[in-house]
Amino acid sequence: MSKTRAEAFSDGVFAVAATLLVFSLQSPDVKSGLGTVLLNDWPSYATYAISFGTILVIWVNHHAVLDSMERFDRTLLFLNGLLLLTVAALPFPTGVLAHYLQAGHDQQAAVATYGVAMSLMASAFTLMNLYARQHGVINTPFDLLGYSFGQFTYPLGVVFSFLSWYLALFLYALTLVFYIALPLVREARTRAASGP
Amino acid sequence: MSKTRAEAFSDGVFAVAATLLVFSLQSPDVKSGLGTVLLNDWPSYATYAISFGTILVIWVNHHAVLDSMERFDRTLLFLNGLLLLTVAALPFPTGVLAHYLQAGHDQQAAVATYGVAMSLMASAFTLMNLYARQHGVINTPFDLLGYSFGQFTYPLGVVFSFLSWYLALFLYALTLVFYIALPLVREARTRAASGP
Amino acid sequence: MSKTRAEAFSDGVFAVAATLLVFSLQSPDVKSGLGTVLLNDWPSYATYAISFGTILVIWVNHHAVLDSMERFDRTLLFLNGLLLLTVAALPFPTGVLAHYLQAGHDQQAAVATYGVAMSLMASAFTLMNLYARQHGVINTPFDLLGYSFGQFTYPLGVVFSFLSWYLALFLYALTLVFYIALPLVREARTRAASGP
Amino acid sequence: MSKTRAEAFSDGVFAVAATLLVFSLQSPDVKSGLGTVLLNDWPSYATYAISFGTILVIWVNHHAVLDSMERFDRTLLFLNGLLLLTVAALPFPTGVLAHYLQAGHDQQAAVATYGVAMSLMASAFTLMNLYARQHGVINTPFDLLGYSFGQFTYPLGVVFSFLSWYLALFLYALTLVFYIALPLVREARTRAASGP
Repeated sequence: MSKTRAEAFSDGVFAVAATLLVFSLQSPDVKSGLGTVLLNDWPSYATYAISFGTILVIWVNHHAVLDSMERFDRTLLFLNGLLLLTVAALPFPTGVLAHYLQAGHDQQAAVATYGVAMSLMASAFTLMNLYARQHGVINTPFDLLGYSFGQFTYPLGVVFSFLSWYLALFLYALTLVFYIALPLVREARTRAASGP
Repeated sequence: MSKTRAEAFSDGVFAVAATLLVFSLQSPDVKSGLGTVLLNDWPSYATYAISFGTILVIWVNHHAVLDSMERFDRTLLFLNGLLLLTVAALPFPTGVLAHYLQAGHDQQAAVATYGVAMSLMASAFTLMNLYARQHGVINTPFDLLGYSFGQFTYPLGVVFSFLSWYLALFLYALTLVFYIALPLVREARTRAASGP
Repeated sequence: MSKTRAEAFSDGVFAVAATLLVFSLQSPDVKSGLGTVLLNDWPSYATYAISFGTILVIWVNHHAVLDSMERFDRTLLFLNGLLLLTVAALPFPTGVLAHYLQAGHDQQAAVATYGVAMSLMASAFTLMNLYARQHGVINTPFDLLGYSFGQFTYPLGVVFSFLSWYLALFLYALTLVFYIALPLVREARTRAASGP
Repeated sequence: MSKTRAEAFSDGVFAVAATLLVFSLQSPDVKSGLGTVLLNDWPSYATYAISFGTILVIWVNHHAVLDSMERFDRTLLFLNGLLLLTVAALPFPTGVLAHYLQAGHDQQAAVATYGVAMSLMASAFTLMNLYARQHGVINTPFDLLGYSFGQFTYPLGVVFSFLSWYLALFLYALTLVFYIALPLVREARTRAASGP
């Protein structure tokens, strides 16, 4: 099993999982006032956007990590499979979160569930990274900040959800913003360093 | 992250999103008279066809734009992700539109929703194009008519939906016809120009 | 837009559409006697198998046709898109057929609907073939039997469904068997002809 | 039809089928106590994980088998299609199993159904292997243990389900663990044998 094939298969799962997130947006079945109902459903759209963005970011990081691997063994194949298992499951907590933010009750449990699912995904990714480093598959310095930020913020979000689920949601969104901003800032710095 | 990979991933999202549009066609659960119910559901089939055609056209244009890019940076990667986010969401407004055209009420809100979703997709595409041009990633002349027609007609459709949702639907269909016809006309002209 | 890319995109739509057919198999929500309910649902499994097999066969034929094309223009791109539109829609008539065969009423309308959807797909494929031949894109002799069998049997099935929907279903299944058997028979003949 | 294309198409079906398993996880619609409901739904998560892992393992084995094939004929193409038909159907028994383990009744029928579906998939895979070997397409020694373990344990699980469905579930999980562990053990042995 070559790395290239595992990568192509992973891309397929990432793309399908991201696209299936649309099912967290359900066409409401109302007798009248569709416009108001759809406008009030903005937390669902925000949830969809955060989950979609997060899958995209993990996909980008996944490629960066696999690109830096010098070989690919069976254990990595199954650790990668474990990561895909958690990625493919994301439409579920996304649907739960969208449903209960809209329903107006049990938001705390829904926000915690979302955080648990994201933590599992981050953990599977960290596990794959750690194995690759310990077995000399990756020899570049460990980009702790770049890849493992969510590893700390998602579990923190689960804890926060018991205090204030608004805060937890904010933390999930912040994690996504961080993941998008970090490489942009780095790229800008590299350009600035290489000079005009 | 190479352009080729971003392109392959985008293709996956386009293909899956287009295929998921089929869920806007729901098997009706009736006690009798299935034939009549299915025949009367023609607005759903039209909605499916317009959305499917629009995704195909955006896919073709997306390839044309990426082919003309001389490099591909992080910002483009995330702007491309923003476009995919809006494309993957299209099964939602398509389902809403199919449902309420059939239900016979709230058509105006459904038609406006559809136009907003299409406008967001067109805007994300324009945003990517503008960035690419401003930063010298694309140096060919800007094909305003070819790529940004929907940028003007979709928001216009949203406005029209408050006057007459028939007119707005007609405008969405017209946009698709335009996107299909324009390259065919251009190709025919090029052939005529190159002579026998 | 190269032929290779259109082909890869088409493959994606074929694969996703085939896999979405599984939604015509719905987990029944019963209070007891699940085993009997699942056994009695065999028409759904047969419908799933016929649709899945038909999509696979069209996919194989689609590749054969595109392989024999010497060039690929804009019109072919949109005719190919029309074919994909009909392929991606197949989970809908498949779900309708599975539902009403099981429900025990309105089978005639469901069987006719299925035949209409299959006829549209066959017509889109024939249209692409005819255009390619008339414009000299394909110069090999036209394999009428191999590619256009369904073009005649599916509409015939729609007509038959008004007389006996059993007969129409049999004709749909026969079309699939024919499409699987024909190339096998031809391959066996070629081997026999080339001798030991 | 080249082997490479059949392989790419198969990869697509495997990836989409694995990702569609998420629909066996349904967002519960409760008035209160979401947390408890989600925690009690752990059998659904276990079912999802077993099915996802099994599809990944079959995907890996599928690649190994196709890699060792020296040619690829029409019969293999259709036997491969038969395998894909059984793989793409797996979200159905997975959904049934998750639903009835949670419902607390009819577990026996659900567990037997799951075993029948897995047996069909294993049989389709064995059939493709047997044909390839009998016709000299594969000349490497037959890895009976590696590829056909499920061929014996899944039907056994169906039989067991009538005695104790706990035991049958355990057997399905064990089959997955075996498929993951076997190549890891072999890889470790090969490394040990090649010495330091």
